[in-house]
Amino acid sequence: MADEFKHLVLVKFKEDVVVEDILKQLEKLAHEIDVVKSFVWGNDTESHEMLTQGYTHAIIMTFNSKEDYNTYVSHPKDVEFSAFFVTVIDKAVVLNFPAVSFKASS
Amino acid sequence: MADEFKHLVLVKFKEDVVVEDILKQLEKLAHEIDVVKSFVWGNDTESHEMLTQGYTHAIIMTFNSKEDYNTYVSHPKDVEFSAFFVTVIDKAVVLNFPAVSFKASS
Repeated sequence: MADEFKHLVLVKFKEDVVVEDILKQLEKLAHEIDVVKSFVWGNDTESHEMLTQGYTHAIIMTFNSKEDYNTYVSHPKDVEFSAFFVTVIDKAVVLNFPAVSFKASS
Repeated sequence: MADEFKHLVLVKFKEDVVVEDILKQLEKLAHEIDVVKSFVWGNDTESHEMLTQGYTHAIIMTFNSKEDYNTYVSHPKDVEFSAFFVTVIDKAVVLNFPAVSFKASS
């Protein structure tokens, strides 16, 4: 799967937001926009802040190609979601990259 | 795949290290330690530092369970690699979490 492209976001949410609702919106978005091949999120509740730097959630979206990713980020629904997303986060790191896979696609 | 467990590392390497060599060592490690279900890495060469916070590489390891992850991090080869890894990085974020997957495993 050398051509897969990943959109990776680490997030620390603001304290007064309902994280579950935001993740549900993101899941809905991933379902509605066809080019999203897969969507995974996770919440690290155990690692030391020395490792997490305060980030609590990871979001990993996988696309078949960079072109599909570009289609996603220019989709009106993602544009709208992103405008909302920046209002609920304390901080974030975003990395977008062609995925080099071993052992299996993941 | 509700039980999958992910080990996610974002890295900014020191300027004088040969990143390709380090990633090759990591690939070798992922192959040698059976519990690693899949291993993916990527290099973001395009996103603005406002998004990447200076992190350039992402490493995503997937395990069938948290127990398998624990087996991995206590494996002598990983312990040895980790001791080396901290000497070649400028900074890193590490998140470990049970993966909540949609659309497909990824």
